[in-house]
Amino acid sequence: MSNAVKKSGVKKVVLAYSGGLDTSAIIPWLKETYDDCEIVAFCADVGQGEEELVGLTEKALASGASECHIVDLKEEFVADYIYPTIATGAIYEGTYLLGTSMARPIIAKAQVEVARKVGADAVCHGCTGKGNDQVRFEGCFAALAPDLKVIAPWREWEMRSREDLLAYLAERDIKTSASATKIYSRDANAWHISHEGGELEDPWNEPSKGVWTMTVAPEEAPNEPEYVSLAIKNGRVTHVNDEALSPYAALMTLNDIAGKHGVGRIDITENRLVGMKSRGCYETPGGTVMFAGLRAIEELVLDKTSRTWREQIAGQMSHLVYDGRWFTPLCKSLIAASESLAESVNGDVVIKLYKGQATAVKKRSPNSLYSESFATFGEDDVYDQKHAEGFIRLYSLASRIRALNTK
Amino acid sequence: MSNAVKKSGVKKVVLAYSGGLDTSAIIPWLKETYDDCEIVAFCADVGQGEEELVGLTEKALASGASECHIVDLKEEFVADYIYPTIATGAIYEGTYLLGTSMARPIIAKAQVEVARKVGADAVCHGCTGKGNDQVRFEGCFAALAPDLKVIAPWREWEMRSREDLLAYLAERDIKTSASATKIYSRDANAWHISHEGGELEDPWNEPSKGVWTMTVAPEEAPNEPEYVSLAIKNGRVTHVNDEALSPYAALMTLNDIAGKHGVGRIDITENRLVGMKSRGCYETPGGTVMFAGLRAIEELVLDKTSRTWREQIAGQMSHLVYDGRWFTPLCKSLIAASESLAESVNGDVVIKLYKGQATAVKKRSPNSLYSESFATFGEDDVYDQKHAEGFIRLYSLASRIRALNTK
Amino acid sequence: MSNAVKKSGVKKVVLAYSGGLDTSAIIPWLKETYDDCEIVAFCADVGQGEEELVGLTEKALASGASECHIVDLKEEFVADYIYPTIATGAIYEGTYLLGTSMARPIIAKAQVEVARKVGADAVCHGCTGKGNDQVRFEGCFAALAPDLKVIAPWREWEMRSREDLLAYLAERDIKTSASATKIYSRDANAWHISHEGGELEDPWNEPSKGVWTMTVAPEEAPNEPEYVSLAIKNGRVTHVNDEALSPYAALMTLNDIAGKHGVGRIDITENRLVGMKSRGCYETPGGTVMFAGLRAIEELVLDKTSRTWREQIAGQMSHLVYDGRWFTPLCKSLIAASESLAESVNGDVVIKLYKGQATAVKKRSPNSLYSESFATFGEDDVYDQKHAEGFIRLYSLASRIRALNTK
Amino acid sequence: MSNAVKKSGVKKVVLAYSGGLDTSAIIPWLKETYDDCEIVAFCADVGQGEEELVGLTEKALASGASECHIVDLKEEFVADYIYPTIATGAIYEGTYLLGTSMARPIIAKAQVEVARKVGADAVCHGCTGKGNDQVRFEGCFAALAPDLKVIAPWREWEMRSREDLLAYLAERDIKTSASATKIYSRDANAWHISHEGGELEDPWNEPSKGVWTMTVAPEEAPNEPEYVSLAIKNGRVTHVNDEALSPYAALMTLNDIAGKHGVGRIDITENRLVGMKSRGCYETPGGTVMFAGLRAIEELVLDKTSRTWREQIAGQMSHLVYDGRWFTPLCKSLIAASESLAESVNGDVVIKLYKGQATAVKKRSPNSLYSESFATFGEDDVYDQKHAEGFIRLYSLASRIRALNTK
Repeated sequence: MSNAVKKSGVKKVVLAYSGGLDTSAIIPWLKETYDDCEIVAFCADVGQGEEELVGLTEKALASGASECHIVDLKEEFVADYIYPTIATGAIYEGTYLLGTSMARPIIAKAQVEVARKVGADAVCHGCTGKGNDQVRFEGCFAALAPDLKVIAPWREWEMRSREDLLAYLAERDIKTSASATKIYSRDANAWHISHEGGELEDPWNEPSKGVWTMTVAPEEAPNEPEYVSLAIKNGRVTHVNDEALSPYAALMTLNDIAGKHGVGRIDITENRLVGMKSRGCYETPGGTVMFAGLRAIEELVLDKTSRTWREQIAGQMSHLVYDGRWFTPLCKSLIAASESLAESVNGDVVIKLYKGQATAVKKRSPNSLYSESFATFGEDDVYDQKHAEGFIRLYSLASRIRALNTK
Repeated sequence: MSNAVKKSGVKKVVLAYSGGLDTSAIIPWLKETYDDCEIVAFCADVGQGEEELVGLTEKALASGASECHIVDLKEEFVADYIYPTIATGAIYEGTYLLGTSMARPIIAKAQVEVARKVGADAVCHGCTGKGNDQVRFEGCFAALAPDLKVIAPWREWEMRSREDLLAYLAERDIKTSASATKIYSRDANAWHISHEGGELEDPWNEPSKGVWTMTVAPEEAPNEPEYVSLAIKNGRVTHVNDEALSPYAALMTLNDIAGKHGVGRIDITENRLVGMKSRGCYETPGGTVMFAGLRAIEELVLDKTSRTWREQIAGQMSHLVYDGRWFTPLCKSLIAASESLAESVNGDVVIKLYKGQATAVKKRSPNSLYSESFATFGEDDVYDQKHAEGFIRLYSLASRIRALNTK
Repeated sequence: MSNAVKKSGVKKVVLAYSGGLDTSAIIPWLKETYDDCEIVAFCADVGQGEEELVGLTEKALASGASECHIVDLKEEFVADYIYPTIATGAIYEGTYLLGTSMARPIIAKAQVEVARKVGADAVCHGCTGKGNDQVRFEGCFAALAPDLKVIAPWREWEMRSREDLLAYLAERDIKTSASATKIYSRDANAWHISHEGGELEDPWNEPSKGVWTMTVAPEEAPNEPEYVSLAIKNGRVTHVNDEALSPYAALMTLNDIAGKHGVGRIDITENRLVGMKSRGCYETPGGTVMFAGLRAIEELVLDKTSRTWREQIAGQMSHLVYDGRWFTPLCKSLIAASESLAESVNGDVVIKLYKGQATAVKKRSPNSLYSESFATFGEDDVYDQKHAEGFIRLYSLASRIRALNTK
Repeated sequence: MSNAVKKSGVKKVVLAYSGGLDTSAIIPWLKETYDDCEIVAFCADVGQGEEELVGLTEKALASGASECHIVDLKEEFVADYIYPTIATGAIYEGTYLLGTSMARPIIAKAQVEVARKVGADAVCHGCTGKGNDQVRFEGCFAALAPDLKVIAPWREWEMRSREDLLAYLAERDIKTSASATKIYSRDANAWHISHEGGELEDPWNEPSKGVWTMTVAPEEAPNEPEYVSLAIKNGRVTHVNDEALSPYAALMTLNDIAGKHGVGRIDITENRLVGMKSRGCYETPGGTVMFAGLRAIEELVLDKTSRTWREQIAGQMSHLVYDGRWFTPLCKSLIAASESLAESVNGDVVIKLYKGQATAVKKRSPNSLYSESFATFGEDDVYDQKHAEGFIRLYSLASRIRALNTK
């Protein structure tokens, strides 16, 4: 690599920087490859944890960056990316709660903003060439800043392993705390953590205990269930156990409570956008509780056709978010449709947490269409049981005509 | 009631008879109301349990029926109604596994067959006028036998309560073992049992322990997980724990195993077809395991667009089955689409049962599109990471053009 | 009828009154049947034509109404009902432009407003018991005024034909200009006119010349084509042939121009909501041109996924409008989704009218995603042809893996 | 080009050869570029016209091919590719009848079969790097023969224009009848012909007269309409004007008749799969008549929900075919769903052709759900108008409850 032909035309690059082994190697590689360009490190704080941010600026500068921008996006991430997504009910391939996917657009947007501020002419990310994230980042860059050059080192350089990276840094006397082996590849934010690699690469292997980090094993969860209450307004959680909380604080609180009960573990073999399948394990403790809460209120307030429509929005949104198409007219349209429906998603839910399960056990809503008197046996003033005959006759009329005609 | 005007024109009625209080009262009521017509009792054995069938013929005859036909539909129910439905992935409103809904068409079909055999000119059911089942039964009758008159006593008579029914029978000296109070209204078959009524009528009430009958409470389930393996062929379970089993036997075996672990409890407020909401609790222990197994194999074998399509089939099928439209061209088309996809749904799954949860922890398939070598970091011969750049450029081209044009 | 038992409990009824034979008979019938109640005639002017409104008040009072309210809804109808619907692209069963369907909600809403103003306790319509309109009116009444009693004389009285109605009026010495025979049943408004009955009742009959009223026969249209230009802003027509026009004026202008060229004739056998099929002929001259214009701009501005989504909205909306579900959360959600997409539906279209056809022959838009330089053979700076290889490899990767695995 | 580094590893290539300028240049280019490999020319006869096949073998051999295989696929193309597609109702982006798209899979399949027969190790096509066809061909190759190398000269060589190609051939003394200028790029088969380029590259230009080749201008079509009758069985045309015809013969006959009346012209700006828009004009005279016929029968035989489902199949199929995903499980599933519905698409249609329009004016079917007696005013035995009240009450119940609850 070091003897590669210098590429010109890039003066200043904003790098999505995590402080990990990959992006540490990217800094010197960019300088060597792109004509000694200036590197501005950028790190989005989307709730991945304080420990990932401590000393980050120092590390970036030591690796050769000229500046390091750490941007706090935690509240915005939950309020403007997570809440609109979960209101639609989007779940990728029936299982994955889109934790990594939802974070990519907000990170890309903030990275572009830093690029504009520092007058950069390129952006760079450390995503591999086989994954979804490269598509998500670059899809957002294309929508927000089509003029910026995008550099994806993993598709350019010849390095293919941690050993390659460690050797590369050692050659350049750049210190790293990274170890030679790392079993799992992980991505964390306020909503979730993902795990790939190691024994997970064979779907015939049950995930081992060492995989999981945000939740206890159901077997080790408390033997007593815990109940948590959510107040929901317009499809957004406003209170947890009667305490008014900001979107981010609500999520953190629920992560704590649900994680203790082993809630939110997911194990999926999914279709990546780039055409191959991969197996991932995900933990979304608080998010799983939020989902259960939203769906429970919807049971009370959405009529049959509205609910069916909500599922169609969800299906579309799950692919859109997974596929990195956030900054598109389609996304705006889906969110407009969803927020309109969510106007009636108001109420309270009590969720029971026990040994890995989150179950909505109590639900009520000022917009509820459920009425005990309508549903039950007795007489009421809106539903005359004799109406049912007419309904059934017309409802099944096409079948009757078909049967009569084919006799 | 007893002094109602006699209605004429009905000579012989086949009644869907359960031996319960309602259908026991229906027999004398039909005779009194419809010109002393002959009543043929009919009972479909769809796996509701031996105890519901013992002494049934005697009871029917004692109530005034001239014959009682009990028809064993257990294997056919699982093979021809349940398996095609679950292959589509149909789940009503995201939660309900359609246990009662799937049973109605096979019962209606068998009832029509008895009617043809005995030369009846009418069929009768004991469904109430506010529920879905009246629509399902009568929708099937319309498709299969539009010439038969349908009698729905609950929409005709004035009785509205158990007390009314008991008084009616007492007046006629017909003995019944039915008690004056019954908290829950239940419907059982091989796939599930449903519970409605009592405290469940308020969705703000958590279901009490007395609701559930097929599953133990998760809190009372074993403290050790149990693993069960399924072999799946063309979307159908062929072996449980390596033992080849008929469809019905496989379901029974899984009901036993999963019920012990508290698996398969559902609590939903759903949209009835007749326009109101109702709250029901359902237990589907074995079915929940089957579902988990099928979806797990699908994760390995369906590509992204196929899986999306399978979800659309599922959505359509969930409403079709719930709404009683089984005997329609739409149903045939949905099943044709689903069975075509299911040709590759082959493989083995191991499912972990623990405290109410069924989790697929091991999956493999001869049709798997997952390949460890493709998905992971290193080189392989089908995927060149450099291809990703071209993919991304074209995939995001519309966004890029839009951004350039609106500058 | 005249000797029917008087029904009580209704004091004042607002009747949707057209001045035709049916609603003329309804006035005395209501008085006789409902305890001498007061009748307030109501007529919505949705552009059905001046001749239908002239002398209407006099006629209503002569028939026994106490008041007659004629409400001008023409601009509101086009702006708030037609434009939002056609922006979605809704076409019922691929053919019908929903002319009658779109008018029902605005009429029902205005009727309820009159009912509130005059303190009525019931509303009444003259729709037959086999059609869609009864469902649409009453669906709107249920949403807007569930407390008002709905009276549907055609489902109550025993009259079944024009002869019955004429005899009924003659008996009461009420004069009518209605003739004993009327071949076609028609419904007109600014958007369209519908025709049913007569020879149309057999779909094996070609509609005769006498059916059509808003358009000339293509055979009699001018031998020279005419070009009309539309300016479109946010999915709404703002100018016709460069003249700024209100929604209603734009539609009237286009009706004139297109009608002369025989544009907008439709002949469909459709599925009524009430389960049977019916055959109708419709004329929508101006609307057909508007549709062509909107779709033409969409060709330029919607990307592939957005357009697919727009079609899903259209499908939903076509059933919702046809089925009379306008005043529902689903409708609001669909319109929100559609109006979001329509933000980029801006531009100019030239449409050629010739012998029954309206063809968009010129299209341009400030939001166009089309670019001559991108689409054509040569080099450009956003699309490198070498990118295509990577795209194709990943796009077809699942097929490749499937083929390799099944070898 | 001529001094490019020789690429090795290819011994024998099967080239999709048309005899046009591009593929004439490809033969020498392949030999020069790929190590003097053997070239087998292949031409699929999909009804593009005799004149395109005359002398083709001679021309191929003269250009340097070792063999030339012309395969007659005309009947198979119509029977196994066109008929299954149009039965679904697939129309791309509401307008394009998929003429080029449907031909690609059958050509690719036959090309692979030739490759297997002659023992080739590569296949080659002459599609450009900006179009859809490269994706369609290579998508099919990936599914059918992932082991074969695919060569796409337009993405490899540096030539970019007709001038380049002519110079290239002149340099090598290879004669060509190709002219230096060609206004439109065209693709023809039995179903259609497409036109791109020239003035069409600006969507603000109306297509000039010289564009069209299969149809006369509506202005020049006969002044008298012509009626053509179709007999349809299981969604396939079996007779034209009462004459039993093979699929291909039926299409040819209809092309003739409809072309004379100017029927089947399409002008669309469409979204290419590769992310940009392009403008194309298409002529599908016979196909337009077939479509009108199929949809007309469907009006009679499909109930409301079945028809809605058929539209969903159509939407999926339109993208699948356009996107080149024919040889996938999704395609099989869609066709299975469609053919199931098509079992009742039987009957006769009379279509009026006049000045560019094809209008179904008479329709009948043994499977018709339309019944004059049910639809019209009077009494009948399947529909009691009083049933409508019950239907409406339940159909609008959710609206009523919502309105009552929010008071």
